[in-house]
Amino acid sequence: MVVETFPIRMVESPEQPTPSDALADLYEGFEGEFLIPLWTEIGDLMPAHPRTKARPHLWRWRNLIRLADRAGELVPVGRGGERRAIALANPALGGKPYATPTLWAAIQYLMPGEDAPEHRHTQHAFRFVVEGEGVWTIVGRDPVPMRRGDFLPQAGWNWHAHHNASSAPMAWIDGLDIPFQYVTESQFFEFGRDEVTEEEHATPDRSRSERLWGHPGLTPVGVQAGTGSPLLAYRWVHTDAALRDQLALESEGFRGVVEPGHALVRFTNPATGGDVLPTIRTEMHRIAAGRESSPLREVGSSVFQVFDGAGRVTVGGETWAVERGDMFVVPSWTDWSVSADAGQDGSDSAALDLFRFSDAPIFDALHLYRSEKA
Amino acid sequence: MVVETFPIRMVESPEQPTPSDALADLYEGFEGEFLIPLWTEIGDLMPAHPRTKARPHLWRWRNLIRLADRAGELVPVGRGGERRAIALANPALGGKPYATPTLWAAIQYLMPGEDAPEHRHTQHAFRFVVEGEGVWTIVGRDPVPMRRGDFLPQAGWNWHAHHNASSAPMAWIDGLDIPFQYVTESQFFEFGRDEVTEEEHATPDRSRSERLWGHPGLTPVGVQAGTGSPLLAYRWVHTDAALRDQLALESEGFRGVVEPGHALVRFTNPATGGDVLPTIRTEMHRIAAGRESSPLREVGSSVFQVFDGAGRVTVGGETWAVERGDMFVVPSWTDWSVSADAGQDGSDSAALDLFRFSDAPIFDALHLYRSEKA
Amino acid sequence: MVVETFPIRMVESPEQPTPSDALADLYEGFEGEFLIPLWTEIGDLMPAHPRTKARPHLWRWRNLIRLADRAGELVPVGRGGERRAIALANPALGGKPYATPTLWAAIQYLMPGEDAPEHRHTQHAFRFVVEGEGVWTIVGRDPVPMRRGDFLPQAGWNWHAHHNASSAPMAWIDGLDIPFQYVTESQFFEFGRDEVTEEEHATPDRSRSERLWGHPGLTPVGVQAGTGSPLLAYRWVHTDAALRDQLALESEGFRGVVEPGHALVRFTNPATGGDVLPTIRTEMHRIAAGRESSPLREVGSSVFQVFDGAGRVTVGGETWAVERGDMFVVPSWTDWSVSADAGQDGSDSAALDLFRFSDAPIFDALHLYRSEKA
Amino acid sequence: MVVETFPIRMVESPEQPTPSDALADLYEGFEGEFLIPLWTEIGDLMPAHPRTKARPHLWRWRNLIRLADRAGELVPVGRGGERRAIALANPALGGKPYATPTLWAAIQYLMPGEDAPEHRHTQHAFRFVVEGEGVWTIVGRDPVPMRRGDFLPQAGWNWHAHHNASSAPMAWIDGLDIPFQYVTESQFFEFGRDEVTEEEHATPDRSRSERLWGHPGLTPVGVQAGTGSPLLAYRWVHTDAALRDQLALESEGFRGVVEPGHALVRFTNPATGGDVLPTIRTEMHRIAAGRESSPLREVGSSVFQVFDGAGRVTVGGETWAVERGDMFVVPSWTDWSVSADAGQDGSDSAALDLFRFSDAPIFDALHLYRSEKA
Repeated sequence: MVVETFPIRMVESPEQPTPSDALADLYEGFEGEFLIPLWTEIGDLMPAHPRTKARPHLWRWRNLIRLADRAGELVPVGRGGERRAIALANPALGGKPYATPTLWAAIQYLMPGEDAPEHRHTQHAFRFVVEGEGVWTIVGRDPVPMRRGDFLPQAGWNWHAHHNASSAPMAWIDGLDIPFQYVTESQFFEFGRDEVTEEEHATPDRSRSERLWGHPGLTPVGVQAGTGSPLLAYRWVHTDAALRDQLALESEGFRGVVEPGHALVRFTNPATGGDVLPTIRTEMHRIAAGRESSPLREVGSSVFQVFDGAGRVTVGGETWAVERGDMFVVPSWTDWSVSADAGQDGSDSAALDLFRFSDAPIFDALHLYRSEKA
Repeated sequence: MVVETFPIRMVESPEQPTPSDALADLYEGFEGEFLIPLWTEIGDLMPAHPRTKARPHLWRWRNLIRLADRAGELVPVGRGGERRAIALANPALGGKPYATPTLWAAIQYLMPGEDAPEHRHTQHAFRFVVEGEGVWTIVGRDPVPMRRGDFLPQAGWNWHAHHNASSAPMAWIDGLDIPFQYVTESQFFEFGRDEVTEEEHATPDRSRSERLWGHPGLTPVGVQAGTGSPLLAYRWVHTDAALRDQLALESEGFRGVVEPGHALVRFTNPATGGDVLPTIRTEMHRIAAGRESSPLREVGSSVFQVFDGAGRVTVGGETWAVERGDMFVVPSWTDWSVSADAGQDGSDSAALDLFRFSDAPIFDALHLYRSEKA
Repeated sequence: MVVETFPIRMVESPEQPTPSDALADLYEGFEGEFLIPLWTEIGDLMPAHPRTKARPHLWRWRNLIRLADRAGELVPVGRGGERRAIALANPALGGKPYATPTLWAAIQYLMPGEDAPEHRHTQHAFRFVVEGEGVWTIVGRDPVPMRRGDFLPQAGWNWHAHHNASSAPMAWIDGLDIPFQYVTESQFFEFGRDEVTEEEHATPDRSRSERLWGHPGLTPVGVQAGTGSPLLAYRWVHTDAALRDQLALESEGFRGVVEPGHALVRFTNPATGGDVLPTIRTEMHRIAAGRESSPLREVGSSVFQVFDGAGRVTVGGETWAVERGDMFVVPSWTDWSVSADAGQDGSDSAALDLFRFSDAPIFDALHLYRSEKA
Repeated sequence: MVVETFPIRMVESPEQPTPSDALADLYEGFEGEFLIPLWTEIGDLMPAHPRTKARPHLWRWRNLIRLADRAGELVPVGRGGERRAIALANPALGGKPYATPTLWAAIQYLMPGEDAPEHRHTQHAFRFVVEGEGVWTIVGRDPVPMRRGDFLPQAGWNWHAHHNASSAPMAWIDGLDIPFQYVTESQFFEFGRDEVTEEEHATPDRSRSERLWGHPGLTPVGVQAGTGSPLLAYRWVHTDAALRDQLALESEGFRGVVEPGHALVRFTNPATGGDVLPTIRTEMHRIAAGRESSPLREVGSSVFQVFDGAGRVTVGGETWAVERGDMFVVPSWTDWSVSADAGQDGSDSAALDLFRFSDAPIFDALHLYRSEKA
């Protein structure tokens, strides 16, 4: 293999050594030995604060769903391609299918009766359903129904397949830490059974994981939890109730919300109380009608999807009006805030609900997390 | 203060030094200096396995409730006595009000309209309701309704009072680590406000703690949990569903129960996934009709209360027929097993439900827990 | 077994129910059912702060060593009695061989050539040597030399024996959590091999544990640590240097001491950085000549031994002049302070060195620790 | 800002949708919306096991030192460039100054009397000295001498500067997690004082950190440790003794080494027993003369420097003869093994000593670490 050398940039600057023939010789010496000096690179490498390569961007749900519908017609699902998933590619990340430098976000689509074949991988994953129903995701042979508002985590290295048991197509979003594991080179992948069994085509109303782990504060002593949450579905009925309770407590004068008019629940692992996945944090935000969140910047990046309502989003200087299904990214150390449109009658139903996922657990685990009011 | 010396026992035994005048002189020397040799004590002090000072004992609910009713008539509740609580005193613990060497168990009783005054203490506590309703326990000014089947933890150093808002008396059981903190000399106690306020007489259907922490797998980001569970009530409807689900999974051929016919859930802290209190483990067992648990012995002691059904209990060689409300203790390293009477029709309704609390978290934390199939 | 009932005390007091025949009947009913009301017991059971049953006491080393010498002549060491150990019995603990409610402290003594037979127990233990040398403690077949100033932890359930390889008797102190495990009923004990092997009579200068774990900040990757410290000897040369360094840093104007003139190091488990034993904390204090520590009270109890120097000790109102080898106890929530005599020339050599062990890890693990400046 | 769209590759393959005009339209639709399908990317993105972008490479110390010497003459050290550091640039990483995808490795060089100015950054760092002495690294105003064989960690966000107090130049290597924090966008950087003070020019024989934390198993109670090791220097005398002890134990028949002839110590944080830095693991390997290590592959990447001795290294199919100072990288999931040349007389002095650093703590913290015998 022939490997090219890397040219060292010699620039005239008060912070750089004075250009000279001798310096050019030295730099040539560096090049020949695959060496690069810090002093020519430090400005980009070690900035005063994170200077993201990504950029804020908004994807409209109507476009996502239109293209997914069309892919449903043209692109088969099967072994090799594995999933009919279409990834959000951050416009500033050079053509990589990365929503942010660490996170993958995609719309996945399954036609009536279709199966996505079984596989497993170390990449941590989840599904979130902004509309529709009819698909069961089968994790470790436990069929888990997916419906509007449901959040479905699936920790790395669990076997999983999907099955559309209904007579209509269904779309949902997938979030994974693919870019993080790609860049840190830690990922494994294995094919499972090609044939989807009768058992996997079962369509129970609740997964077995929910029957074991879905009772609040109650742990089944007879089973062991592994890495990541053993609870495979967080149902909208609970998420909605938790958000409603926070705003009601606020109106009664009690603590609960994270800031005025802003309810926030985190999806957590019932076996540990911590994040639902080792590398991905997931949350549901509710901004009351006519209210807004305080601008904030944080280490790490996020992807949001509007679950319900309408409002305005500001990310790093860009502002968009958003509605159901729209997705946007907040890169690292970029100011963001959201506001909910005022309801016609000030009713709670006009709240803006936002699903969010981020890479925060990575920074928590490594003592690198920071945040700042913008 | 005059302190008596402690006589050293001189005995003739192959494992003891030969009695002699010189030895008597030596022992007298020990006595004068408050010294005691290991060799005369080791048999009791360092046994091959725990040799409990407590003994198995059963208290009948009909007797407990009868005496509590009578105490309701004769004994007022107020500052100083603090609570109309009557403790189970293990017959082998020398007149101490201890159910076991580490655990306190009592029946508490409140007459219509009565208040038990506010106080706080480092002793960790919980309430469990075998029958009745109408009392609100007020923890940190959050009124928590108490009803049949509910488990209500209350970690140390939280202000709390009780209020009977109904027109009938109500009884429930209290569990605390009073003996443990007494013997390790770590307890603090403080009186709160004497007057019970309007706010504390509120009778909401759900406590604020449940509105914040009672949604499965969902953590409120705007509040912080302290030591012990922030969830102040674990409702019977959930506990019952969790147990029913485990037995149903078993009958469908899936894992879930701890052993055949034996469902088991642990009440856990949603903020950590661990025990609900730092020193007390609490669980609900359901033995299916006609089934029995395997005999087991464990480090640490437990108190059980029959919540529902009827069956037989064997503890350390004693066997009792038990029914709703009956309470019994299992001392450390003592074999225990339970069996449910066969239902008339084999129906699930004939299951034996047992609430249990134990000191297991102490031994877990200090790496001293052990168990063994008997 | 006939069990006596426990009489309930009926007293006339504003905080107690009014004495009456009906109340006497009720109390008799309690007695018959092994029940004890809270309201007659709460004052003792749930005090405002720990009210220790133990009392401060001082044991003079000259008396301890004199009696141990005599026991060396009269009392053989062997299977059954196991150890020639003489325990400090707190004068207020009713003739139990307990220094405090949770801690055992004893002087142990071995004659030239003697072996103490192998056994193991769940009780956590350590040895500390105030004077002498010549004994090897053999832990898991690793012979560990014991010399003046050395601290030797030995976590529960490790096989151990002792061997005096010298031509003189040797004494040292043992500390264990015997009372704690006794009262919580969690202790196990097992006899080992009766014959002490050639291997165990080896007298290496350093134990194998020190060769693996005794290099600062360096972990041997090829071995696993269990519960408790894998380092079996903490040598005086290191302890002394660490204390000297702290006082030198103080004199140079840098942080290091816990308070002016008071250096303090904790013996810690190199595999975790935490306490050396799950239930026992051990420390060495050095009070510079002429300086004193601030009075403090803490949850939990301690035993101290003067390692070197002379000074005065105040515990709960009692004050003693102390010198090398003297031992004293500080009960829970009892004020204590120590002061070092002024050196003739103000030299460092006149410092007061105090070895201390306590039950603090129990309270740390269970979130019950508190302290307060007295 | 104009952002280019990313072309989707349409390929003819059994695992890809059949090329067609309709498909081309769909792909064009994707491009217009910044979307990329999984099915065209999955082969590279989600491989069966890590397929590293990096490659094994060896840098000869004689070349590194020659170029560093020359840089010493031509390149000043000062604010802006910050350090005269020259990074190893993995030939397969496209001209980035990264030794591996997560790790930075550089030779740093300071001329007699020179100061490198104070700054701090969240990137975790260490220094390791393969030869020379005379520089003090000043961490939080604590001057730490650097000498052959010393390992000097410096956790993120500590102020630090360097000072050459000798009359000769000195070189050493720096390791940091710059690439990891760069790609995850979590890094902060701040300039410190420009002027180096008198205090910072102090040249004590031991740092204050060593006086506080460098005593084996002894924790100073008066100071608090932050994130990362509070011990700022791990001296060669200790590392060498630990390795020598392991090999001696092996020859005596006891456990200690990780495999026959292979001693291994890990530099650990004395306050936790864990890795010395949150993102970087550091170790010293000693392969006895004539012995070799078993081939291994692991998740994550490493950089090695030969500290002493001579031998052969095999990484992913490439084999090099190595000697003092030579550096090489082992990419993720790439087989590696090392062997020490046979000594002339089989003496221990012919052992091969290898310093290694890796990104393993990242994968440990996130449950992504795996290894496999090759």
